[in-house]
Amino acid sequence: MSITPVRELHDLSLSKESKTIKYNLVQVKGTWTRKKRKTQRQTKNERVSTAEIHECSRERGTTWTVVSPIVFTYQVMQIQKLLDPSNDALLTGHIRDPRQLELLRCNPRPIKRFVVMDETVFKLYGCQVTDYFENRGVLYRILPLATTEENKSMEKVMTILGEVHKFGIDRRTEPIIAIGGGVCLDIVGLAASLYRRRTPYIRVPTTLLSYIDASVGAKAGVNFANCKNKLGTYIPPVAALLDRSFIQTLPRRHISNGLAEMLKMALMKHRGLFELLEQHGQYLLDSKFQSNGVDLTPVAAVATKAAIESMLEELAPNLWEDSLDRLVDFGHLISPELEMKVLPVLLHGEAVNIDMAFMVYVARERGLLSEGEKLRIVRCMLALELPVWHGDCTLALVQRALADRLKHSGGLVRMPLPTGLGCAEIFNDTDDGTLCQAYEKWCNELGPEPSLSILMSSGHV
Amino acid sequence: MSITPVRELHDLSLSKESKTIKYNLVQVKGTWTRKKRKTQRQTKNERVSTAEIHECSRERGTTWTVVSPIVFTYQVMQIQKLLDPSNDALLTGHIRDPRQLELLRCNPRPIKRFVVMDETVFKLYGCQVTDYFENRGVLYRILPLATTEENKSMEKVMTILGEVHKFGIDRRTEPIIAIGGGVCLDIVGLAASLYRRRTPYIRVPTTLLSYIDASVGAKAGVNFANCKNKLGTYIPPVAALLDRSFIQTLPRRHISNGLAEMLKMALMKHRGLFELLEQHGQYLLDSKFQSNGVDLTPVAAVATKAAIESMLEELAPNLWEDSLDRLVDFGHLISPELEMKVLPVLLHGEAVNIDMAFMVYVARERGLLSEGEKLRIVRCMLALELPVWHGDCTLALVQRALADRLKHSGGLVRMPLPTGLGCAEIFNDTDDGTLCQAYEKWCNELGPEPSLSILMSSGHV
Repeated sequence: MSITPVRELHDLSLSKESKTIKYNLVQVKGTWTRKKRKTQRQTKNERVSTAEIHECSRERGTTWTVVSPIVFTYQVMQIQKLLDPSNDALLTGHIRDPRQLELLRCNPRPIKRFVVMDETVFKLYGCQVTDYFENRGVLYRILPLATTEENKSMEKVMTILGEVHKFGIDRRTEPIIAIGGGVCLDIVGLAASLYRRRTPYIRVPTTLLSYIDASVGAKAGVNFANCKNKLGTYIPPVAALLDRSFIQTLPRRHISNGLAEMLKMALMKHRGLFELLEQHGQYLLDSKFQSNGVDLTPVAAVATKAAIESMLEELAPNLWEDSLDRLVDFGHLISPELEMKVLPVLLHGEAVNIDMAFMVYVARERGLLSEGEKLRIVRCMLALELPVWHGDCTLALVQRALADRLKHSGGLVRMPLPTGLGCAEIFNDTDDGTLCQAYEKWCNELGPEPSLSILMSSGHV
Repeated sequence: MSITPVRELHDLSLSKESKTIKYNLVQVKGTWTRKKRKTQRQTKNERVSTAEIHECSRERGTTWTVVSPIVFTYQVMQIQKLLDPSNDALLTGHIRDPRQLELLRCNPRPIKRFVVMDETVFKLYGCQVTDYFENRGVLYRILPLATTEENKSMEKVMTILGEVHKFGIDRRTEPIIAIGGGVCLDIVGLAASLYRRRTPYIRVPTTLLSYIDASVGAKAGVNFANCKNKLGTYIPPVAALLDRSFIQTLPRRHISNGLAEMLKMALMKHRGLFELLEQHGQYLLDSKFQSNGVDLTPVAAVATKAAIESMLEELAPNLWEDSLDRLVDFGHLISPELEMKVLPVLLHGEAVNIDMAFMVYVARERGLLSEGEKLRIVRCMLALELPVWHGDCTLALVQRALADRLKHSGGLVRMPLPTGLGCAEIFNDTDDGTLCQAYEKWCNELGPEPSLSILMSSGHV
């Protein structure tokens, strides 16, 4: 056979130089081609990508570095009367492009929606959801699912995927809807993230905890090997639709559960929110975050808004956790281990609060908080009817959990600690002595035989 | 209890205006806060994020739109002697930051690596890989795994995850290494993407097909419900390390298999590559892409480089397939259904080639290709020893596959067709009549009793 001479082949594309050339990518008539960055001048029919390819050719071979930014855009929307058939939000609230909305309105095909509902939520709201879809002429399938921390597993994800596949949805325009608490939203989020490499999904939180926590961020996931959320993705929903009215059917203990995550954000970065919880915590528990008719006190609205805003501030710039220094990890250093150990004894927020209470003692021991500040925080926790201590949270568990974090966080413990009321920093230098002393004081003051001073003044004795 | 007056609460954070405010995010001492875009002026201790939060407050509630760009950066590196213990690439080739490299070198802890190898590849190269890690003092675990299209499933992913979890790795600095063909790389990529929401992984392709195809892009995934790659992610590896020497142990049929994807890129956008394959296809098959000692013909180097570059051009600007108009889908409209139907009769590239051959007839029928161009393409396919027709690729299968694509691609069939040699466009208007006529001609000319003219001139009769 004939062999093309070497020189000719080199001319084709092989180069001997070893410097790096940066290329932009431009699209003309459907085909992308590289253009050197310097010479790039956009013409009318060209589309220039934000992606780049850097090429470094040597005689031994070439190295290409691909730099490709993906922009995640999602909406967190407070909605009233979400299940009222006259409300479009559940069907089209996620669509931001007016043209796309118009296309959908003109499309004679019925809208298709696959919905996963937590079993308990289905008992309470199943009829309303069914009515909504019937009323809107939607082709729908509702899958009620028992979603608990114990069965938050890949098997559940596969169950959902099997049903989604049978039902059939368009991978770009027919989002999967999850209605339930954090566990339900997390499982469905992972299923949607995996289906056809990502199918849009919508979160409808029905608990206070998921309203201010799971709904706001990008994380989805399941437990694995007895570890919390060990498997998952960072794909945000297209929309989180927040209707506070779901919270009215929540047991009082679950309101406290949600208040724990709210208190977390307050302690880390929002003194105003802390003072609001300090003053109105009991009222929020009693009123279940509802505006009862002629409600002159938008405490619930202000509290949820502040919690969500502070959460978004921390999550949006670090959506994929490139930085492991996260203030929102406060209360989440020891609690995952504790929660999984005593499952199902403690709710997530309860375990978080026990972790936070201990960390407040660590902060006090390090001189970051005054005794008065410490007492105010503990009293607030008690007023929110949250546990501040637990017998299974042994010193050994604390040390094991922190050692594990050290191992998994690039050799640093990255411990968020309050440095006052509503401000915090991340510390890597808490020594074991401080930890032990804090632990002892914590047990003495809040343990099975607590010192009376704290509890008396918050009216708990 | 006391209630804060309404006005005061409003001052805290609730607003009645309904216009949208765009916020940037700035970090001071570890805490992120919002700053209005207009007023934003960066001070020395501030860090400004590329993320934004747009807030639209109404009396009924607030809508936050989170816009958060995530930059994916990965390297595709051609490497010689990857398994030579003096070569650092396998351990540190993915590290771009010199400081990080220095930190690793100074770290007294041994490097840890979890490796998944295809079973067959392990038999051929297991000793070399073991020697490499032993020689480098690495703490390693190699998991040999049967990875075939038939067992490319979530169960395999879970098997890997169980072993990864037992072994224990740092979620940011200890990438999982996959050594094998496309199926192996895809399964491991998905496992890594899921573990702790993403663990870095490295692809080492050992087949020609995965060298120019699976390694280059971001996709990972497994089959589900008898559908190819129905579950997966778009998380790219930190590095794809390409060593052509693996290809020398590949059966000849698998070289052809890889050449099909190379031909795909040639037909879509690289006339030079097409002509190279036309001229040197047989040589590439014979030499198995190796440079035999004093090799004066860098055909293999030029061909692989051209294939990878054209692939990267198309993938980098569309890493998450935001656009479903993809030239790289050529040969992938009918072939997924055909491949899964006759499994394991056809290799992936073979199914792709049958699809491409049919599409060439569609392009000819539409007048996009001349008879001469069509013949050159078919002859080239035959010279690459690829099947150009298959009895199971019935007209019904073709129609079903295209209808399925229509359903899953936003109502458009998005059919890439060659419009000459090395150029192509995407079409949505191929009518059923054209399809049937093309099918008939295809069967007549290339079917079980092919017209002789084509085959004779390529020396196949």
